[in-house]
Amino acid sequence: MQAVIIASGEGKRMSQKRKDSPKPLLKLLGLTLIERVILSLKQTGVVEEILIVVGYQGEKIKKTLGGGEKYGVKINYIENPYWRRGNGISVVRAKNQIKGNFLLLMADHIFEYTIVKEIVKEELNGYDAVLAVDTTPAEYLDVNDATKVKLESDKIVQIGKHLEEYEGFDCGIFLCSPKVFEYLQEAISQGKESLTDGMQKIASVGRLKAFDIGEKFWIDIDTPSTLQEAQRILCRRIGKESDGFISRRVNRPISLIFTRYLVKTNLTPNSISLLSFALCVVAGMFFMGGSYFLTVIGGIITQLASILDGCDGEVARLKFKVSEYGGWFDALLDRYADAFVILGMVLGILKSKGGISPWIWGFVAISGSFTNSYSAAKYDLIRKFKKRKWRFGRDTRYFIIFLGALFNQLYFTLISLGVITNFISLRRMWVLRKD
Amino acid sequence: MQAVIIASGEGKRMSQKRKDSPKPLLKLLGLTLIERVILSLKQTGVVEEILIVVGYQGEKIKKTLGGGEKYGVKINYIENPYWRRGNGISVVRAKNQIKGNFLLLMADHIFEYTIVKEIVKEELNGYDAVLAVDTTPAEYLDVNDATKVKLESDKIVQIGKHLEEYEGFDCGIFLCSPKVFEYLQEAISQGKESLTDGMQKIASVGRLKAFDIGEKFWIDIDTPSTLQEAQRILCRRIGKESDGFISRRVNRPISLIFTRYLVKTNLTPNSISLLSFALCVVAGMFFMGGSYFLTVIGGIITQLASILDGCDGEVARLKFKVSEYGGWFDALLDRYADAFVILGMVLGILKSKGGISPWIWGFVAISGSFTNSYSAAKYDLIRKFKKRKWRFGRDTRYFIIFLGALFNQLYFTLISLGVITNFISLRRMWVLRKD
Repeated sequence: MQAVIIASGEGKRMSQKRKDSPKPLLKLLGLTLIERVILSLKQTGVVEEILIVVGYQGEKIKKTLGGGEKYGVKINYIENPYWRRGNGISVVRAKNQIKGNFLLLMADHIFEYTIVKEIVKEELNGYDAVLAVDTTPAEYLDVNDATKVKLESDKIVQIGKHLEEYEGFDCGIFLCSPKVFEYLQEAISQGKESLTDGMQKIASVGRLKAFDIGEKFWIDIDTPSTLQEAQRILCRRIGKESDGFISRRVNRPISLIFTRYLVKTNLTPNSISLLSFALCVVAGMFFMGGSYFLTVIGGIITQLASILDGCDGEVARLKFKVSEYGGWFDALLDRYADAFVILGMVLGILKSKGGISPWIWGFVAISGSFTNSYSAAKYDLIRKFKKRKWRFGRDTRYFIIFLGALFNQLYFTLISLGVITNFISLRRMWVLRKD
Repeated sequence: MQAVIIASGEGKRMSQKRKDSPKPLLKLLGLTLIERVILSLKQTGVVEEILIVVGYQGEKIKKTLGGGEKYGVKINYIENPYWRRGNGISVVRAKNQIKGNFLLLMADHIFEYTIVKEIVKEELNGYDAVLAVDTTPAEYLDVNDATKVKLESDKIVQIGKHLEEYEGFDCGIFLCSPKVFEYLQEAISQGKESLTDGMQKIASVGRLKAFDIGEKFWIDIDTPSTLQEAQRILCRRIGKESDGFISRRVNRPISLIFTRYLVKTNLTPNSISLLSFALCVVAGMFFMGGSYFLTVIGGIITQLASILDGCDGEVARLKFKVSEYGGWFDALLDRYADAFVILGMVLGILKSKGGISPWIWGFVAISGSFTNSYSAAKYDLIRKFKKRKWRFGRDTRYFIIFLGALFNQLYFTLISLGVITNFISLRRMWVLRKD
């Protein structure tokens, strides 16, 4: 399927933020707005070609995005010299390049890619276009400025900014038949040049369908405050289902602060995984020192590594770089990191306490840590754990080590880790056996 | 769907083997023939009710199988007092209980359950029955005694034992419409009482379809030698795709010998997993002894545990007891077993060589063993490994320990394990990164 992205406007209300750049090139958590639209489209797996209608500072957009190679999509450009006029004209400019039904999107609307994935499944029969409609808008929506729709069941009968009665809001995502161009041209010939004017034409003849997006996320980035809001929401949405208590309450809030900086760098998620691993090796070396001072530093670095361990996934999700390999690589590195931390603890404990007991407990702790991680995925899968369920994972283990180091109780911590982790692994065997 | 199993005959040629029992109750690797048919039907997931036609020693069969509760299926019985006559009569006895299209099987035909799973997908339109046909029979098929079919594309035009020209063999698995009873009754009224006679009626009017089973396994257990053959084949077929070289060449041939005995006991696959684990704990304790004599015994027990580790899966597959939990439980126990063996090795080495180096190498070896196992599943999945590919797994690790113990080189073995396993884990990270 082809997708048309309207990126021709100036975005006056953003002039302070965007400085010299056009609004579609505004950065949001390391990616420009239009890159987010492009990568969301790619993620749906149904878009073959992206047509970008450019106008205001179009050259800058073309130079930034190129032919789409770096995003793994095909991008072509359409110039609209009349970009100062209504945005309906920008859509009509794409007419000659369109081969069938197509998606129509705005460069400044950020959205959950599943909205597009579902809207393309809508049947057009009897309709000329489908519009994604939000009937339960979030509190950040600027109701005065938003385009409203009046519905009769799933038919849009009126669309505009100034409706008195309305049931939902225009999310700026359309599935269109090529017939849409006729309505738009008719509207433009009557001096009604906005896309909404053209859509009102379709609604008037009862051929504009509404697709209710339900609870899915979308936001129209129109002002500096909506940009802030979008950043806040995207960050909030990247917590993982499987997050344990410490992840959720301690690590995630801090890692998100790091992540906001990390997304602006060129660091890949895998480099961040390596960095977290390296911190664990360093922490292990500090533990080896044996003194209280070094132990505390080791503990702090351990907790830091645990926090940073969340950033690789966060950056991956925020920059559309999630990969099966990345998750596997991170998990494997984590296991080695665990080994280094525990080995460091054992060697540190040996400084004040000889004998083979610290070693034995080291073996016990490493076996427990490994079998915990080894069994977690399948256990969660079979038991279908919900988000809020208590989970004892790497986040908790490292937090315990952190606390143990602060209180200078490394040996007691090692023994506790060994007992708790192995208890959990054995309990999992037992619980699943009964299932 | 309903399935009818013909279990009424005497099985004269088996009289020596079966002694006092009817042929369907003959044991094959721990399960009776008819139990294998029932469990295969259950595995297809499409059979709701099994109707068993009994005759010769029917009470014994009913007493053994009961209502099917222990197999998780519903079993009902149909008596055929005329079991000495042709087996077509047995089929007709089921007529009143049949509600629609049904499966028809023989109690003494063992088969791969996928044959049934696929034959039920066949469309009957224009046909009254579908027969599973083998066009590439294995060398153990008794061609003189087998029922042959003559084909015209996928239509069976002739069926019988004494065809001069034929393209395939009757596997004894049918998908029937209720119309089949009419043909059988017509044949019986003409004194042609075998199922084959009835099927020939259907073939004569061009309404018997052939379903080519391809390379799938089936066997008609008619004589003591085919029973032996079936045992041999079932055992050969349970090797795992993921078997490494040592598994395939060393462990599997020996574990199959154990398994032939184990299937006859009531030991569950999970108990066998536990037994293998216990052997590893014992092996670790022998290694701790430190002397050459104890080390050798430890090595032999380690290799024995490695062999026994194959038996749980073999018994599970042979007795239709494969479960997701079983695989997970076994894998988790294996990790603990690894920890005990390596810990035992370290403690044994410490007897002759002090210092922290044996401990460090123990940590290295255990980390390598764990990360090898941890990374194997996903690595194999992504790389789509073929059966014959070299794999370094638990089988190889334990074989190395076995050899190391024989040559009294436990320390060198520990170091080698540490180096090799970690090299493999790092190599996997590297190889997948390039993909």
